[in-house]
Amino acid sequence: MFAEIITIGDEILIGQIVDTNSAYIAQELNKIGISVYQISSVQDHREHILQALEEACSRADLILITGGLGPTKDDITKHTLCEFLQDTLVLNKEVLSHVEYLFEKYITTPISEMNRQQAFVPSRATILPNKYGTAPGMWMHRGKQVLVSMPGVPFEMKNLMQHEVLPRIQEQFHRPFILHRTIMTYGLGESAIVERIEDWENALPQFIKLAYLPNLGKVRLRLTAKGSDKEKITEAVDTAIQALYGIIGDIIYGEEEAGSLESGIAKIMTKKGLSLATAESFTGGKIAQQLTSIPGASAYFKGSVVGYATEVKKEVLGVPEDLIKKHTVVSEEVAKSMALQARKLFKADFAISTTGNAGPTKGDSDVEIGTVFIGIATPNTVFAEQFSMGNHRVRIVQKSVHKAFELLKKEILKI
Amino acid sequence: MFAEIITIGDEILIGQIVDTNSAYIAQELNKIGISVYQISSVQDHREHILQALEEACSRADLILITGGLGPTKDDITKHTLCEFLQDTLVLNKEVLSHVEYLFEKYITTPISEMNRQQAFVPSRATILPNKYGTAPGMWMHRGKQVLVSMPGVPFEMKNLMQHEVLPRIQEQFHRPFILHRTIMTYGLGESAIVERIEDWENALPQFIKLAYLPNLGKVRLRLTAKGSDKEKITEAVDTAIQALYGIIGDIIYGEEEAGSLESGIAKIMTKKGLSLATAESFTGGKIAQQLTSIPGASAYFKGSVVGYATEVKKEVLGVPEDLIKKHTVVSEEVAKSMALQARKLFKADFAISTTGNAGPTKGDSDVEIGTVFIGIATPNTVFAEQFSMGNHRVRIVQKSVHKAFELLKKEILKI
Repeated sequence: MFAEIITIGDEILIGQIVDTNSAYIAQELNKIGISVYQISSVQDHREHILQALEEACSRADLILITGGLGPTKDDITKHTLCEFLQDTLVLNKEVLSHVEYLFEKYITTPISEMNRQQAFVPSRATILPNKYGTAPGMWMHRGKQVLVSMPGVPFEMKNLMQHEVLPRIQEQFHRPFILHRTIMTYGLGESAIVERIEDWENALPQFIKLAYLPNLGKVRLRLTAKGSDKEKITEAVDTAIQALYGIIGDIIYGEEEAGSLESGIAKIMTKKGLSLATAESFTGGKIAQQLTSIPGASAYFKGSVVGYATEVKKEVLGVPEDLIKKHTVVSEEVAKSMALQARKLFKADFAISTTGNAGPTKGDSDVEIGTVFIGIATPNTVFAEQFSMGNHRVRIVQKSVHKAFELLKKEILKI
Repeated sequence: MFAEIITIGDEILIGQIVDTNSAYIAQELNKIGISVYQISSVQDHREHILQALEEACSRADLILITGGLGPTKDDITKHTLCEFLQDTLVLNKEVLSHVEYLFEKYITTPISEMNRQQAFVPSRATILPNKYGTAPGMWMHRGKQVLVSMPGVPFEMKNLMQHEVLPRIQEQFHRPFILHRTIMTYGLGESAIVERIEDWENALPQFIKLAYLPNLGKVRLRLTAKGSDKEKITEAVDTAIQALYGIIGDIIYGEEEAGSLESGIAKIMTKKGLSLATAESFTGGKIAQQLTSIPGASAYFKGSVVGYATEVKKEVLGVPEDLIKKHTVVSEEVAKSMALQARKLFKADFAISTTGNAGPTKGDSDVEIGTVFIGIATPNTVFAEQFSMGNHRVRIVQKSVHKAFELLKKEILKI
């Protein structure tokens, strides 16, 4: 069984927005055993939507559609779906009173005829209440196929997925078991790994698929297995991974967990009652921002001092001036001092520091672009490591933030 | 003339990555007058890629393809393109010496047969050198249609687009002129705007298309015009926008510039030689991170103190304790004091502060979730404004960061 995703909206085709809805929907479907065959982004044009629906229906049993449900002229998804399914629009009183309620509670302008139109839905559609907006989700049938239409606003769509769409899919579709596991390696390129694991790869059972995912100086190996026998699949993948450790255990540094590295840190620190502060130079607040984007960060994250300039390191953080003079601002000694000072300033158990040069021009230091130091202060020790992160500004910051989280995680696991 | 984009890779279909390549390519194509008809994301499967190529070729003259060009077994784009175009792979000596050069310079492991395979390309393809990676771009013909294959790694693809693909497209395709202009409104909902501008919208010339883009509490109106006569189109859109100001001038607060609000701030501050600091509570470093993500931020951005906790506001920033006691930590007075203290601590001309409650639980304050204060300190004054940003954590932060930039921009334009 396959699903397809269709995202509708000219704003996607002109590149005004990045379509994040598809990745979210694909991820959620995979979790419950449904593979996505194709993702298509199409324009707000009747013929184009009809064609995309036709094509998707020729390949998949479940079609999830987002976008084009607003009240204005350019939003034609609802009418086009009606045409495709040979249905007609009828007034739904529950939707109407929800729209009226939203207007009364949150919107200052009076409700208009156009807003009331939001309550017209295909006569045979099951309505999925949209708590956060005026356009409801719609669950529709076409023979044995299911088509689901949701608004394109990400937080409205996500809420509908969680509370309405996913439970219905789980109820109505017979699904295989899908298992993804991703092994993280460091230190060898994609093709060098291939050569080492060639025999292992060729001996994998047919139902296990391997993918190489090079990113941020690492190669991740994703194993995907699919079938009806959960136990058999889980065991086969376990066995394959154990064998893999036997062959390239020297470059494997762990398995990718569900969720990000920083959410793992958040969980551990909260559970152990530990606290964290950061002193960020070239990472510009990205470490703090990634940590605080996880709800509940206030339980362990004390705060951060962000500053490129040498004077901030001296005056706000209190790094000794002679230390900077002696070792230069991008140095192991300064990274260590920054971590220590952040730990002290924020009264935290742990601190991360970053100092380096992300380019495009050299700053208060003469080091090469891409040279960075990451410091970690713990209740027991302080250290800093030097890295060469390449010459691409955005990637230098990304890689460094990731590396900082890795170093920190290792330390908090020791406590 | 239409283009289509095909992004290839199982990692997209299982939601492991968000496909940002498509939005970038679509945006760049639009700038040079090429409309994208459809974006399709497909799996690393031979039949599926062939089918997607067939479908795209039935609709478009130019097909841009990313992904599936790695050296490993799961990367089959090159072979499949060869099959589709009835071509064969031949060794390209320039690509080979580039691959050898990259291995010698950057990669510690010895070059392997598999790496050398990267130098095999379709015999009739024009090779587009990939400075940053081993997989070259390929420019191919199929009758009058052009197919371009690029690696999926975003920074490799972007470099190829800028230096190889876009110049060739501009040379080889006759392109219409496309103009997008986006008017930003605030204070009225989508449907209320529709009612006020209905007559204006109906009177628009056929070649001007209007779209409503509601986001972050605002509605943006995008006008898109397309045709061969650049002067006529520009004039017609100008006239339409002037007329629009006559009707809803009360809710228009500007036109969206190419580039973000923060890049506008960066330009103005750098040009005027002004400097900026921030004190961020619930925004958690996102303001600093967005500012420092723009190259050259060190010219004007001094730094930031990030901290949720009341003690950080007191001890690191120096907000007076009795002020917090009297007004509570989420208050106009504390926001003002935070901005003043940040300006002083970092010796900056301007400072932004944020204090509020982004949920999901109440922090050191009893205010409602979504209640925030944004403070601005300037060389001449200090003020803070209160906002209600809804009840969705991520959006509360996004809206507040955006609002902070708006408030700051107004002030720096006064200097």
